[in-house]
Amino acid sequence: MGRDYYTAAVQGPHQHFELGSFALDSGDTLPDARLAYRTHGTLNPAKDNGVLVPHMYSGTSASMEGLIGEGRALDPSRYFIILPDQFGSGLSSSPSNTPAPFDRGHFPAVTIADDVRAQHRLVTEQFGITSLHAVVGWSMGGQQTYEWAVRHPDMVHRAAIFAATAKTPVQNQFFIDVHTELLRSDPAFAAGFYADSDDVHLGLSRHAMAFTMMSTTHRFFRDEVWRQIGFGSVDEFALGFMRGHFQPMDPNNLLCQAAKWREADVSRHFGGDMAAALGRITARCFVFPFGGDLFFPAEDHDPDVAMIRDARLRVSDSPLGHFAMFGLLPEDVTAIDEALAEALKS
Amino acid sequence: MGRDYYTAAVQGPHQHFELGSFALDSGDTLPDARLAYRTHGTLNPAKDNGVLVPHMYSGTSASMEGLIGEGRALDPSRYFIILPDQFGSGLSSSPSNTPAPFDRGHFPAVTIADDVRAQHRLVTEQFGITSLHAVVGWSMGGQQTYEWAVRHPDMVHRAAIFAATAKTPVQNQFFIDVHTELLRSDPAFAAGFYADSDDVHLGLSRHAMAFTMMSTTHRFFRDEVWRQIGFGSVDEFALGFMRGHFQPMDPNNLLCQAAKWREADVSRHFGGDMAAALGRITARCFVFPFGGDLFFPAEDHDPDVAMIRDARLRVSDSPLGHFAMFGLLPEDVTAIDEALAEALKS
Repeated sequence: MGRDYYTAAVQGPHQHFELGSFALDSGDTLPDARLAYRTHGTLNPAKDNGVLVPHMYSGTSASMEGLIGEGRALDPSRYFIILPDQFGSGLSSSPSNTPAPFDRGHFPAVTIADDVRAQHRLVTEQFGITSLHAVVGWSMGGQQTYEWAVRHPDMVHRAAIFAATAKTPVQNQFFIDVHTELLRSDPAFAAGFYADSDDVHLGLSRHAMAFTMMSTTHRFFRDEVWRQIGFGSVDEFALGFMRGHFQPMDPNNLLCQAAKWREADVSRHFGGDMAAALGRITARCFVFPFGGDLFFPAEDHDPDVAMIRDARLRVSDSPLGHFAMFGLLPEDVTAIDEALAEALKS
Repeated sequence: MGRDYYTAAVQGPHQHFELGSFALDSGDTLPDARLAYRTHGTLNPAKDNGVLVPHMYSGTSASMEGLIGEGRALDPSRYFIILPDQFGSGLSSSPSNTPAPFDRGHFPAVTIADDVRAQHRLVTEQFGITSLHAVVGWSMGGQQTYEWAVRHPDMVHRAAIFAATAKTPVQNQFFIDVHTELLRSDPAFAAGFYADSDDVHLGLSRHAMAFTMMSTTHRFFRDEVWRQIGFGSVDEFALGFMRGHFQPMDPNNLLCQAAKWREADVSRHFGGDMAAALGRITARCFVFPFGGDLFFPAEDHDPDVAMIRDARLRVSDSPLGHFAMFGLLPEDVTAIDEALAEALKS
């Protein structure tokens, strides 16, 4: 399964944009770097209907396609929707698909700023777009959205950020430490030099335990909301949904993404001055935390919003918390679509 | 360090009560079982001024002594305060001090009900007490307090429960799965048959990471409250306080306690009928959740309180959350003492 997961057969059709030798924030250069991506809709002649939708941790460019549809907020008859894969997704340059000497455990450290610089090249060089109608993202995708709005205020006119902060909260960093430690704790991980990701099934199971614990809410368990999404027991949810989600993935790919998530901070290139970084944003920002989210608590969004010129915050409650974006409850799908429509049509 | 930790030199003076062959809930019998305990104050002639204070996960009978003092709520000039060690504390019968064939990884599973049955023998046989002024507990100590109030309504006149529910919340059970998995993941754990607890230092460090993440609150990190308790950086807090707390402990002892915590449920002996179990309580109950607690969220206490005849709930906010009970902030010490005074003097 591990070997098949990062293929078009599982992930659906996608293209690649060749970046060539790509200089990373770390100082390393990744040779023959490439970004995977897919698009929906048509770029208009003015080239101003582009909406960029980066994805979350453990996702690929396929992950956000569930938001797209005729008559929905992300309507491909109206927008040219670009879904880029982040580095480490398994489709873009990743530990799992890069040849030696940057393969597997030797893949260099990347940052969200690296992702955004690569995406900027895709958007400008491949499509000739210099003005984006919007950037939309959830979780790490939301952090990429912030990075876009800060780095390219001239290009980003609207930003819709679901459950993400401009800098990863410290408590969330400790969660990342826990889930990456669980993944690495499997002796078969072998410092990243396993032969097949399936060999690390124990580490992948342990990693899923951390997400079972933290990615929804206390209320999800208290009110047995897992029943509403079709599970007969809480263990069935833990194994069928959480373990099932992560088991086919490549541990090094997850760790590559997790390291970016942990260090996400748009003030990094401004000497840690968050007000200076967020003060650059000219996009109209829509910040949508999920109430009860244990990764990016609603309250952690307030300081960001206070530092952005034109930002509005609306907390939407869901027992799914951070994972509301998976759209497992019909009311989450509706709420997210309404929020997104508000952002895109403004 | 590991070998010295469970000694009077570190834990202070304590006594032992011999239980003999002790039949456990599991069906196993623990030979030569013993409870460690210590007392403060003097039992009055009527033998009705006893206050029993069981301890929390990772604690010993020394852990709750910080609540005791002249002029404080737990005043030894007024009450006869009994601090029992739970099974697995390292001072009572535990994996670390029980001879073969019940040593180390072979120590049998115990329950909170086992603890309470053993404590009942201590209280009645050793001291001839048939009426307790109060039982007071925090976290697992609070769960033991519930078990006391349900099993012995004739004996328990007041119950003060800090941050604990009558049944462990499911989300909290997943946390226990994570921290025990982290502890066991160290190859040196060797299914519990390590020679010295220090050998499992990696597992103990990993286990501490889980507590760093979850045992305080989001606000603790957001507002850098660790500065107020004397740490210069958040990593200093994580290593100096959290790792420092757990590092000298015995992994099997922690796992013994964690298993009890995970399965805590006063309705277990009532066929899962929580209303029947809590309906037995005649004690005046004072339930004190800590706002922002990620182990036992304030909201999880409401259903318990609703099923108890005479219970009052007061949420006290602290950025320390579950660990408010450590009394690291002066305002926590004051709030807890006031709450306890209200309960004991009622």
